[in-house]
Amino acid sequence: MQYCKNIGESQRKNSKNIMIKIGVIGLGLIGGSIARDLNAQIGVTLYGYDNNASHLQKALEIGIINQSQNLEYLIENMDVIILAIPVDKIELLLPRILDSINKDTLVIDSGSTKEKICASVSDHPRRGRFLAAHPLAGTEYSGPEAAIKGLFLNKKNIVCEREKTDADALDLGLKILTSLGLETLFLSASEHDKHLAYVSHLSHISSFTLGLTVLDIEKDENQIFNLAGTGFESTVRLAKSAPQTWAPIFNKNSTHLITALDQYINYLQKFKTALEQDDSNASYRLMEEANRIKEVLNK
Amino acid sequence: MQYCKNIGESQRKNSKNIMIKIGVIGLGLIGGSIARDLNAQIGVTLYGYDNNASHLQKALEIGIINQSQNLEYLIENMDVIILAIPVDKIELLLPRILDSINKDTLVIDSGSTKEKICASVSDHPRRGRFLAAHPLAGTEYSGPEAAIKGLFLNKKNIVCEREKTDADALDLGLKILTSLGLETLFLSASEHDKHLAYVSHLSHISSFTLGLTVLDIEKDENQIFNLAGTGFESTVRLAKSAPQTWAPIFNKNSTHLITALDQYINYLQKFKTALEQDDSNASYRLMEEANRIKEVLNK
Repeated sequence: MQYCKNIGESQRKNSKNIMIKIGVIGLGLIGGSIARDLNAQIGVTLYGYDNNASHLQKALEIGIINQSQNLEYLIENMDVIILAIPVDKIELLLPRILDSINKDTLVIDSGSTKEKICASVSDHPRRGRFLAAHPLAGTEYSGPEAAIKGLFLNKKNIVCEREKTDADALDLGLKILTSLGLETLFLSASEHDKHLAYVSHLSHISSFTLGLTVLDIEKDENQIFNLAGTGFESTVRLAKSAPQTWAPIFNKNSTHLITALDQYINYLQKFKTALEQDDSNASYRLMEEANRIKEVLNK
Repeated sequence: MQYCKNIGESQRKNSKNIMIKIGVIGLGLIGGSIARDLNAQIGVTLYGYDNNASHLQKALEIGIINQSQNLEYLIENMDVIILAIPVDKIELLLPRILDSINKDTLVIDSGSTKEKICASVSDHPRRGRFLAAHPLAGTEYSGPEAAIKGLFLNKKNIVCEREKTDADALDLGLKILTSLGLETLFLSASEHDKHLAYVSHLSHISSFTLGLTVLDIEKDENQIFNLAGTGFESTVRLAKSAPQTWAPIFNKNSTHLITALDQYINYLQKFKTALEQDDSNASYRLMEEANRIKEVLNK
């Protein structure tokens, strides 16, 4: 892990004692975990804001942030601003932040969709100060108490439209993300959203849907959850995720996600047809093909 | 844990030195794990058979069983026979085993479906020597090398049609299952199959289907699995499961599973409609309802 004593040299060229000021907006699972790890690094003063007052208070209490401040203060006074709020809120707030930051401030987002966020500032005169990022980490829990030390260690991060970010901002942003333990890959915003529709957003929908279906039957069969094994718990785990995070993600990635859902439903229909036609061979072949997931997940 | 020195008293009444002879047919994940734990108990001689010769050899080598024997030997010479083969094979073999066992032999199955297995021997003159069981444990791996010590510890077991099993056979069967660490619940075969369709079989189909869908897109997007996070891995884990186990399960539980699949697809369509209509509130409400899984899984 690199520490922040190595980052932000340009911000501190006049004095070795000046701390880099990082402001995290949104102190839930992702923002809280980012703040927690950065706040533990030498040379960082960590400011935080959350529009949920009790989250902000809790983040201060448990030491995830050094100082709580209002949004305007963060926008005007930080070296680095990190956005960890729902993707629809990022899309609304990001242009306003770029309007008002200092000329050297870097803004990094952490949103799970990228096309619409990037589009919201594509023509902004300060576009170069924005780094479009997505650290691929999380759990099904939410809020500052869900923040985990080392959440991003050995995880992947995706940066989109790197060419639109100023060289110094890209450099600083990558150093910060690397210091969290992330390995960065570069994709276009469109590739990002398509890929994530399949390997993240669809699996959330499949899990929410499994939860809904089993809850429905549970109304009549109240001991059904006594029978739930580890396989069910693993498959339904993501159904515990926060709707306020995921409703905007699904909405902002609806085009790719509808395509993925159509393919998913199409395969379910194939299983259903195999069952209806008493055709074990057909379901066997589908599962044999699905087994190839073992190889690709291990490569 | 109880040990087998406490079981099978009726089988050993003539001598304290006679070991109880248990034969496990099918030495994969489930049979291998049963054999491994029983073989570690005092007073048990563990015989095994698998129609896959290399599995049988491997089970001997790694000490899961004491002796390998052919099927006929096991049927004619055991105090207890445990069936851990695919459910369609249980349905075929069970009547034949009951035809040929000694009058005191107990036969326990471990199949993941129960209605058709129970129906296959419902009128058999030796029905009382059969205990219809389903230990709710497993992993996505298979074969004797996947056998795990303590796989059943603190897990649930379901026994169906207890009233059709002779009192002494029920007593001995439950002692054996309890000695593995299982807690037994009693359900009708029909209730069992309905419940399991929802909390086990459907989640396997949803996971296989997720694997298929993402493998499809991966043909064009070869780096997609670099982006797979822990959420995806959790949701797709069951897609690694063995088709030879699961094709017969789906087939033998097709009526309940088709009903469950219809409900599941119906909920997916609701998500899809919400996406198509740009209706974040609708998907929010679906997820909020699904979140109730948190409470029921913890109760």
